[in-house]
Amino acid sequence: MLPELDFAYDEPDVGYKKVRLHFNENLFLTDDYYRALASSLEPWELRYYTDPNNKRLASAIESHHGLPQGTVVITAGADEGLRTAMLLAAHMGRGLAIVEPTYGMARVAARQVGIRPVVSTYREDLSLDVEEVARMGVGAIYVCSPNNPTAHVVKEVEELAARFNGVVILDAAYAEFAGYWRPRLYEYGNVVEVRTFSKAWGLAGLRVGYVVANRRVADVLRALSLPHPISAYSAKAVEKALEVGRPYVERSIEELGEVREWVLSQLKVNGYHGPTNFVTLRVDDAEAVAAELDKMGYVVRALGGKPLCPSCIRFTLAPRPVMEGFLKALRAALKV
Amino acid sequence: MLPELDFAYDEPDVGYKKVRLHFNENLFLTDDYYRALASSLEPWELRYYTDPNNKRLASAIESHHGLPQGTVVITAGADEGLRTAMLLAAHMGRGLAIVEPTYGMARVAARQVGIRPVVSTYREDLSLDVEEVARMGVGAIYVCSPNNPTAHVVKEVEELAARFNGVVILDAAYAEFAGYWRPRLYEYGNVVEVRTFSKAWGLAGLRVGYVVANRRVADVLRALSLPHPISAYSAKAVEKALEVGRPYVERSIEELGEVREWVLSQLKVNGYHGPTNFVTLRVDDAEAVAAELDKMGYVVRALGGKPLCPSCIRFTLAPRPVMEGFLKALRAALKV
Repeated sequence: MLPELDFAYDEPDVGYKKVRLHFNENLFLTDDYYRALASSLEPWELRYYTDPNNKRLASAIESHHGLPQGTVVITAGADEGLRTAMLLAAHMGRGLAIVEPTYGMARVAARQVGIRPVVSTYREDLSLDVEEVARMGVGAIYVCSPNNPTAHVVKEVEELAARFNGVVILDAAYAEFAGYWRPRLYEYGNVVEVRTFSKAWGLAGLRVGYVVANRRVADVLRALSLPHPISAYSAKAVEKALEVGRPYVERSIEELGEVREWVLSQLKVNGYHGPTNFVTLRVDDAEAVAAELDKMGYVVRALGGKPLCPSCIRFTLAPRPVMEGFLKALRAALKV
Repeated sequence: MLPELDFAYDEPDVGYKKVRLHFNENLFLTDDYYRALASSLEPWELRYYTDPNNKRLASAIESHHGLPQGTVVITAGADEGLRTAMLLAAHMGRGLAIVEPTYGMARVAARQVGIRPVVSTYREDLSLDVEEVARMGVGAIYVCSPNNPTAHVVKEVEELAARFNGVVILDAAYAEFAGYWRPRLYEYGNVVEVRTFSKAWGLAGLRVGYVVANRRVADVLRALSLPHPISAYSAKAVEKALEVGRPYVERSIEELGEVREWVLSQLKVNGYHGPTNFVTLRVDDAEAVAAELDKMGYVVRALGGKPLCPSCIRFTLAPRPVMEGFLKALRAALKV
């Protein structure tokens, strides 16, 4: 009677005793940032539902970016945003393409809503063949920029938006690291931009994301969303982050940049890097290297079987003292 | 290009200046309960993703109820639980029946995942024709017990679980008010029980729900869920509630019962009541009565066009001083 599902998100809880370099959390934000967001809830705030569709927070985000009213839809992290976009694709019923290699949850979210995605692949130089994609005849396409795990900014996104006859689901989870603070592509009318407070904003524990689209598309996405996706605490903390947090986040991105440069100068292996808080390396046996690093207390992501990434490890950049220890461990692991 | 959707959850934000009797929040829990749950997050708790699939909290809930391991799936409120169950129904592909009149989001959640539900209806005496439902030939059925808005416990749920050849989605949002603290029907193997901390537990602002099913079904539901549905703050507060909160909640339910008895003794109109924190009244013009009450500062839910509820208002029970004012306003509104 049960459906046989060939997908699932499941991984062990690594806890906090090992160095977490597998989730691309922003490890450069300091305690004073979090102290600046700290607040406590009044009892009545726990008792009541948040305002329908979190329109107050949506409106605060629209103001922060200078976006037109009604273009922002709040979601339970970017993952819900991604899934809501996938539901839109499912209702359109014209199929979905995913440009690989990319974030694994894109495929999972598509499969969850009953879509079997077709695959397009970046060229060896990481450029995107817009012609080819436009000819695929699908109703929606998933593109992540800057892309995970290749760390490159997809330069062809605007050309794609202009020429693709369908909805472009743009996963912009890492956008702020690359200087793209303001969602802008909603102006194309067929772009659904998925954003999150979990990466550059350093607030993964709050589970707040949002989707930006032009008003008509946003109305449809809102109808496909959960009515009360985030907690009262999260709404309050994110409002505070918008008010006072940006200088802290910008400083953390600056420090990240310096550390990235240093790390890259130390590495003598092939791989992918760009304006993100992670680096991906091509290695002979990703699983073995990740296992070896794990023994030394560093958790990284092993990626295998993806186009352009037949065997890679991806690690989050962390402050320099952490990276010094990690690079030592990495050199040891690569000799295995 | 966009799909035309004939459903959406959308309502105005009534804020907190009027008396909120429209969301069935538990209005009997006192500040000392919320103070007992209060805690603040360490900075690192905001920075990191919660543990994958919130297995720690799921495990705490399983322990609290003495449920087998792996039977609980954490969701962003009962609404996400409901939608995950609907995704299961969609993957089964054999259709869905909703027993009306019931919670409006059941239909919305079904439509969001692309299901057009068929409708079954309670008999005039609120009994359920299990034979009829079993003959409908659908793969899943949605039943809410105690039901919203009729407030009755659906006595036929076990018979339905035993005889229905498909999945029973049991919305047990109000179960604790009726004394059903422990989810138990997962033992049937085809029951997906949706639970929440938003109603009796008084924690609607946290957005935490869960789904209980036997291990095999729960594994499928987990694969269809968001990987990190709730915030670190919410996980912490709910764990605390499980540890220390139950006596407070039980006391609030006791007081609720006394107020309900008193309110019913004062009412001279037909309607529905049962072991829930709301009462539904049949009135001539639900919209007009609700509008009149709104002017007097009381927000209630106007229900129209549903089987057995052609024109009803539903209001949440609140502590006696609030109810005294409300009944006065209600009498005035009914004379309109």
